[in-house]
Amino acid sequence: MDEIVAYKTADKMERRASSTDKKALDRLLAPRSIAIVGASEDVQKLSGRVLYHLQKHGFKGALWPVNPKRDKIAGLTCYPDIASLPEAPDLAIVALAPDASVAALKALAKRGASACAVLSSGFAETGPSGAALERELVKISQQYNIVLLGPNGLGFVNAFNGTVATFSQYAEREIKPSSVAFVSQSGAFGTAIASLARARGLGLGWFINTGNEAALDVWDLLDAAIDDDQIKVLAAYVENLGDGRKMVRVARRAAEMGKPLVITKVGNSSRGAAAAAAHTGALATPARLFSGVATRSAIISAADERDMLNAIEALVRAGEPAGKRLGIVTMSGGAGVLMADLVEQLNACLADLSSATVKRLQEFVPRFGSLSNPVDITAQFLAQPEILEQAILALQDDPEVDCVIVWLQMMDGHGVRLAASLARCRDASKKPLLISWIAASPPTLAALQAERIATFDNGSDAVRAAVTIADRLDAIESFLDAPAPALHTPEPRMPRILSVEEGAVRLKDSGVPLAIAELATDADQAEALVRSGGFYAFKIASADIGHKTDIGGVILDVEGGAAGRMAFDKLIEVAKVHCPNASIDGVTVQKMVPEGLELVFGARYDAAFGLVVMLGYGGVFVELLGSAEFALAPISVGQARRMIDALPAQSLLDGARGTPPVDRTALANLFARFSEFVAENSGSIAEIDLNPIIVRGDTVLAVDWLVSWAEPKP
Amino acid sequence: MDEIVAYKTADKMERRASSTDKKALDRLLAPRSIAIVGASEDVQKLSGRVLYHLQKHGFKGALWPVNPKRDKIAGLTCYPDIASLPEAPDLAIVALAPDASVAALKALAKRGASACAVLSSGFAETGPSGAALERELVKISQQYNIVLLGPNGLGFVNAFNGTVATFSQYAEREIKPSSVAFVSQSGAFGTAIASLARARGLGLGWFINTGNEAALDVWDLLDAAIDDDQIKVLAAYVENLGDGRKMVRVARRAAEMGKPLVITKVGNSSRGAAAAAAHTGALATPARLFSGVATRSAIISAADERDMLNAIEALVRAGEPAGKRLGIVTMSGGAGVLMADLVEQLNACLADLSSATVKRLQEFVPRFGSLSNPVDITAQFLAQPEILEQAILALQDDPEVDCVIVWLQMMDGHGVRLAASLARCRDASKKPLLISWIAASPPTLAALQAERIATFDNGSDAVRAAVTIADRLDAIESFLDAPAPALHTPEPRMPRILSVEEGAVRLKDSGVPLAIAELATDADQAEALVRSGGFYAFKIASADIGHKTDIGGVILDVEGGAAGRMAFDKLIEVAKVHCPNASIDGVTVQKMVPEGLELVFGARYDAAFGLVVMLGYGGVFVELLGSAEFALAPISVGQARRMIDALPAQSLLDGARGTPPVDRTALANLFARFSEFVAENSGSIAEIDLNPIIVRGDTVLAVDWLVSWAEPKP
Repeated sequence: MDEIVAYKTADKMERRASSTDKKALDRLLAPRSIAIVGASEDVQKLSGRVLYHLQKHGFKGALWPVNPKRDKIAGLTCYPDIASLPEAPDLAIVALAPDASVAALKALAKRGASACAVLSSGFAETGPSGAALERELVKISQQYNIVLLGPNGLGFVNAFNGTVATFSQYAEREIKPSSVAFVSQSGAFGTAIASLARARGLGLGWFINTGNEAALDVWDLLDAAIDDDQIKVLAAYVENLGDGRKMVRVARRAAEMGKPLVITKVGNSSRGAAAAAAHTGALATPARLFSGVATRSAIISAADERDMLNAIEALVRAGEPAGKRLGIVTMSGGAGVLMADLVEQLNACLADLSSATVKRLQEFVPRFGSLSNPVDITAQFLAQPEILEQAILALQDDPEVDCVIVWLQMMDGHGVRLAASLARCRDASKKPLLISWIAASPPTLAALQAERIATFDNGSDAVRAAVTIADRLDAIESFLDAPAPALHTPEPRMPRILSVEEGAVRLKDSGVPLAIAELATDADQAEALVRSGGFYAFKIASADIGHKTDIGGVILDVEGGAAGRMAFDKLIEVAKVHCPNASIDGVTVQKMVPEGLELVFGARYDAAFGLVVMLGYGGVFVELLGSAEFALAPISVGQARRMIDALPAQSLLDGARGTPPVDRTALANLFARFSEFVAENSGSIAEIDLNPIIVRGDTVLAVDWLVSWAEPKP
Repeated sequence: MDEIVAYKTADKMERRASSTDKKALDRLLAPRSIAIVGASEDVQKLSGRVLYHLQKHGFKGALWPVNPKRDKIAGLTCYPDIASLPEAPDLAIVALAPDASVAALKALAKRGASACAVLSSGFAETGPSGAALERELVKISQQYNIVLLGPNGLGFVNAFNGTVATFSQYAEREIKPSSVAFVSQSGAFGTAIASLARARGLGLGWFINTGNEAALDVWDLLDAAIDDDQIKVLAAYVENLGDGRKMVRVARRAAEMGKPLVITKVGNSSRGAAAAAAHTGALATPARLFSGVATRSAIISAADERDMLNAIEALVRAGEPAGKRLGIVTMSGGAGVLMADLVEQLNACLADLSSATVKRLQEFVPRFGSLSNPVDITAQFLAQPEILEQAILALQDDPEVDCVIVWLQMMDGHGVRLAASLARCRDASKKPLLISWIAASPPTLAALQAERIATFDNGSDAVRAAVTIADRLDAIESFLDAPAPALHTPEPRMPRILSVEEGAVRLKDSGVPLAIAELATDADQAEALVRSGGFYAFKIASADIGHKTDIGGVILDVEGGAAGRMAFDKLIEVAKVHCPNASIDGVTVQKMVPEGLELVFGARYDAAFGLVVMLGYGGVFVELLGSAEFALAPISVGQARRMIDALPAQSLLDGARGTPPVDRTALANLFARFSEFVAENSGSIAEIDLNPIIVRGDTVLAVDWLVSWAEPKP
């Protein structure tokens, strides 16, 4: 895990996702000296509480309170102003009124401070005048090259060096470092999550609240965490994605460095997005889009704080499995069945135990238990303690098993002994071992924590965590094969919807075969076009009419010259009735394509991610959004293949109802090529919708397309 | 909730779902005397532990140990055998070896005992010889009319009268009665769930493990719980559904009596299940089928034990909301966003607060909070304690709000005060109040429990519980409008797949309009049939060929006599090549139908439920499993309407892409009528698959159908 994989495509400029100077970030996170501007002895005040926390948790560097009214604060020499500090501080904590904070930042910058955390609120979150003050902070930080965290944040904790520079409630209890870095955009929620991590004994190496992110954002800080050798697992709580490409670049470095990244992203629904906009001014990112990009980027996307902590628990204490063939040992047949249901639901699989393993289990599993996976050892191991350990070891030794989950319940008084037994199993194999222990007593939980065993209070959580981690590993290779995402994607300026013919010209380089369409400008031409025989589709040709079926602008199965004339006249009439202001070019005439599976290839410019591509089932069923898979363009062939394999109802691809099976390799190659085309036309593509694309074996034909295109700036 | 709703349709025979005599069940659950057969003082032995638990928890009736080797056990007179008992016991506990248990049951029955719980294992769960012994138990219980619980169970607890007749670990700690009855098919898992209920302070009135269910099953005991006035909420953990109709009958009585029923059903995955030959057989995955029937039956279907306990927590401590318009108060904007996302995902809604409420909130919510739902009051209420209570009351008073959820975190030291404040809010309104409190300290949790406030450790859980309960209430009326399910559905014997014409005859009474199809037995007839003009669909006609498109047995868009001849010859040829042994009747010729939304109506005989109906999107997209809704036939119009409204991608029904919107009322009437037809043909219908059905406005036309029909016994 520690091996550093060489960068494949990113150049030196791109190696760090962050544009922030690494040294200055080091000064922020590992300061040798901290000035507390507006320091107080009153722990009810923010700055008083920060100072108290720094002292309480044993910060080793210099602490310099600044307050013109005092000589000493909390036993420390107090300085009347920033100018009189003994030297430029590595870090300054500012918790003054908004305008005073701006002045303080300027004074600190002039004094040569490296970094500043502005904890005060009253900035952009309060309205236009606050936003103006926040812009001033940014201006100063850029002008003087001073690193800025916040404003409107709780500060941060670097537990490795006692830098507890926060007024968060989290600092009120003991802080133990661990290999986990947690960065949160929310103060209150972040504090709760950090506290839950502590309650599970997981600890945090870093806990950072980014506040308004006037300068440093969540991605900058995760990026810094990747560079810290003590950090092995990254986690973030995100409300406002900001630049989604930056997220993907950070994910890429994390994947290269073997550091799993767990993100809980909220604000994915329309109401949720509205609430998020009220809260942080975040833009809406559809849930499917975020989760698609996250999956492709080997990010573990956690639904809520419980999901996040369960993933961290598994990562830190169980490690990563080689695959997702789960072996389950249980003392309740029913619990085994419940977990088996979930394994299937999550598209993972229960390992088929080898016959050698079954034979081995037969020797000690009670007759009324079960030898097949999930293995039910019953409660007999309370009388014969060796049964539990033997069963786990048997599964760990089976080459068919990637990961072992054990389900236990209650057994007050046996916890300490069993925890030791489970720790022996964990140490005997490299395969992850996850324990779900229902209604465990506090002493049992303490014993499991002391042994650092990955423990869950519910079988579903253990299964979900194991599968989540396996899915991440599965995504890494194809993610690192993909080209690095663009640093910047210009927004298409004033795009217009192209005519079918113009669209076909633009799509020529996309690699997607298009059904030939010819334009008839009068009924005679229409008649001539269909004369060669067969069935034709007639569609109204107008750049002003987007979805033609909506107005009855499509006639199918047109055969013969007379029908061709009639269809032409009908369509022109329909268009005039429904879209009287539309400019009509005529009617496109297109040979009808054979039956096959209808898919859709899509692309669109997204404010957060730039250009994204979409693959899903086509026709009207494109509306079944749950079936579409998204990714940031461009993608690798491996990623395209994973998107295909992630579509629901896979039997449709395997040739349901008489159509030949889809050639997945050919389709993956084509879709990856399409994604490259999309990326190459950054700044031009606003939206592309190839729908439907008829797929039959290895033949692919796009029947209709909608292209919204912006001309590049002259 | 206490009002008894009169039975609407069920006759007296059907009023109780259970066939077991109510009086005898009373003797089991509220015995005046208990004989412990094979009693022991050794609490390591099952019977010793049961006796110990009965004494420890203060069972008030007579306890009669039976053991020929002892005079006294645990201070009680011990009887040498069953014959010498002072009188016939209401209940006997038997925990002897399997064959001795059979003998004991017989002796007890002869002695006149009312009920017997056989705790011993070694019966059907161990194989054929055990199963034979179990059959003997059943025979004796039927012959002598003695109620039988088990074998291979933990026994049960009736906390109202101290009948702790179990060796479960659950009995080791304090048992407090509550209005919840919990019946479990699993001993180990059931014990864990019961213990979790205790840990939350919820308590259980009844905790019953049904073991092998040789006689009494989970439905009999839930049915008995409905009759107990002290029980208000029913919960069950189910692995083996048994008779699904019985479940629905119990659900019906529970709905009539206003007692919510929560079920966790495991064993829903298809692993190990043989792929069904018929296509829709594979469709009807048990998970979808169970959840469909449960939803229609106003059963709360809980995914696992956590879901179950959360639903119970909300039912017992918060009560039932009038609708699903949620109002959320939070001290973290981010948490509000997360919950808003989930509300949308669960098809519930965030209440649109009235302007009066917003005005009221404006007076005290801090400027950096949020006045729209979710209402973010920030942490300011720690300084101004009245803010929290005022915000909750404002939302409770708003007629737009059905239920209030509050999100809090940590705040060690404020728990007791806040719990009192929340209790005041709860008492001030009839609207349910649910609290999610993240990382609460143990004293806070204790204070919330003491105030009996519905508490969740996670915001998602609170939202899910609230929506779940609202969904149940929404289902009740249409459920009680539906005819009672059949007591028994005969399995169709040797069904055969009908020809299209035969199928059309059978379906005549279903109410579903069918596209007219005529049979051509030679090319001349085919030519004649298409002569009237327009486009036709040609399909091979053979009872031996199920899914015709699979072999290319369908040709669409046939126009004109010559094309008709060619299509006929082609289809006959294709059928001969692919199905050389099929008996071919000819080719059906059917006028092609206009474009519209493709749906499917399905029906099939299910071993657990009898006849079930299915509604979903049609065409090849019938494969998109998540889109189908199931119900036990027959259903009410209201239930049909709910199934329509539960389909995903509702915009398809609203007339996406140019098709006129589906007339939901007409469709609901038709589908309800179809379900009646299905129920009326019990014993005949093995499977019906009307796919596709083209729906356009209020016109409906089935284009193709597969009917598998059994002739009734002569």
